[in-house]
Amino acid sequence: MGLTPRQEKIAEMVKTLGPITGEQIAERLHVTRAALRPDLAILVMSGMVEARPKVGYYYTGKNVRSMLTEQVGRIKVQDVQSVPVVVTAGTSAYDAVVTMFLEDVGSVFVVEPGGILIGVVSRKDVLKVAMGGSDLYKMPVKVLMTPMPKIIVTTPDEPVLTAAKKIIENEVDSLPVVVPASQQDNKALEIVGRLTKTNIARLFVDLGEGRGGEQL
Amino acid sequence: MGLTPRQEKIAEMVKTLGPITGEQIAERLHVTRAALRPDLAILVMSGMVEARPKVGYYYTGKNVRSMLTEQVGRIKVQDVQSVPVVVTAGTSAYDAVVTMFLEDVGSVFVVEPGGILIGVVSRKDVLKVAMGGSDLYKMPVKVLMTPMPKIIVTTPDEPVLTAAKKIIENEVDSLPVVVPASQQDNKALEIVGRLTKTNIARLFVDLGEGRGGEQL
Repeated sequence: MGLTPRQEKIAEMVKTLGPITGEQIAERLHVTRAALRPDLAILVMSGMVEARPKVGYYYTGKNVRSMLTEQVGRIKVQDVQSVPVVVTAGTSAYDAVVTMFLEDVGSVFVVEPGGILIGVVSRKDVLKVAMGGSDLYKMPVKVLMTPMPKIIVTTPDEPVLTAAKKIIENEVDSLPVVVPASQQDNKALEIVGRLTKTNIARLFVDLGEGRGGEQL
Repeated sequence: MGLTPRQEKIAEMVKTLGPITGEQIAERLHVTRAALRPDLAILVMSGMVEARPKVGYYYTGKNVRSMLTEQVGRIKVQDVQSVPVVVTAGTSAYDAVVTMFLEDVGSVFVVEPGGILIGVVSRKDVLKVAMGGSDLYKMPVKVLMTPMPKIIVTTPDEPVLTAAKKIIENEVDSLPVVVPASQQDNKALEIVGRLTKTNIARLFVDLGEGRGGEQL
């Protein structure tokens, strides 16, 4: 979004002197108020400058980039999440890996009845155990999983941007998407989805190609 | 970026009737040409409508979203890529996994002298072999790697959007970033980086938070 030299000048003026009235800007530029109107309209339209009645124009600093930030911030985890792949605590490490291969996922979530999340097992976890020479058939996933509450989680209505940040900062491949379980135990979380780096990459491609993110 | 009802009406008119002159639009809306000027300026500014001298206004269909698409398209693989982690063909599967753990990567690239890419080995590949009961100490990575030319690759100057699409469509976690090797064999590719889903997710977070992508 390119501004003309005069629009740039006006934006700079509003930034340093604002709030400033249209008359004051016109005076400084030696033009009429009417001649300024299209330029001011464009600056207001772009979001960079706002008009406040009886006060004048002031600078917001918004631009296409910051509007984008605002809009991407509206996309929620539930808009891009995948179905979670789960196993029970007694499942053997071997069967957990078979599930990973069949479902083509990098980790499986370990649940109790009611979908209550108790752990997560990744390819990396199993590989570590396999390298140590353990018998994967005999070892239940419960032994090698990362247990709650150590797991980083997200929720369906969390902005996907915040969740993506959790993935990056905690160096994990995916997050379980959870909701409070409708039970007496108010710490219990029910798993309702998973958010992976693949979901993020797909969203990036969709947005970049002008698809997806209907919120935008 | 919201348009006023009159701007929407003008955009629609230009879309269906364009190219159309300012005078013709003014006539249809029963307003003066001067009264239209700010609205037309905004539509041109937004990129949605373009003006061609002696022809009139015509519709481009561009909006904030498509401008974003244009801008994201300018970010290259080399702007976000990571350093590649490599092993030689004779490395044992066991040592390749140790390298994966030490470097905390999901796959390692197999190279010949000069950094010529000949294969890639992922955690998944090794896990599959380990599950089958093979001796990881004795098995060279050459046996279990995905060999060239089956590997999907990217180049430093490819748009990161195109590369991200390759990752999604081919269901891989990363792509080797390659350049033609300066040798007689003109099919040989030298590995100079790796592009992972983590790189894409980080770019998404950076763009969403208004950082990064200095090209924007």
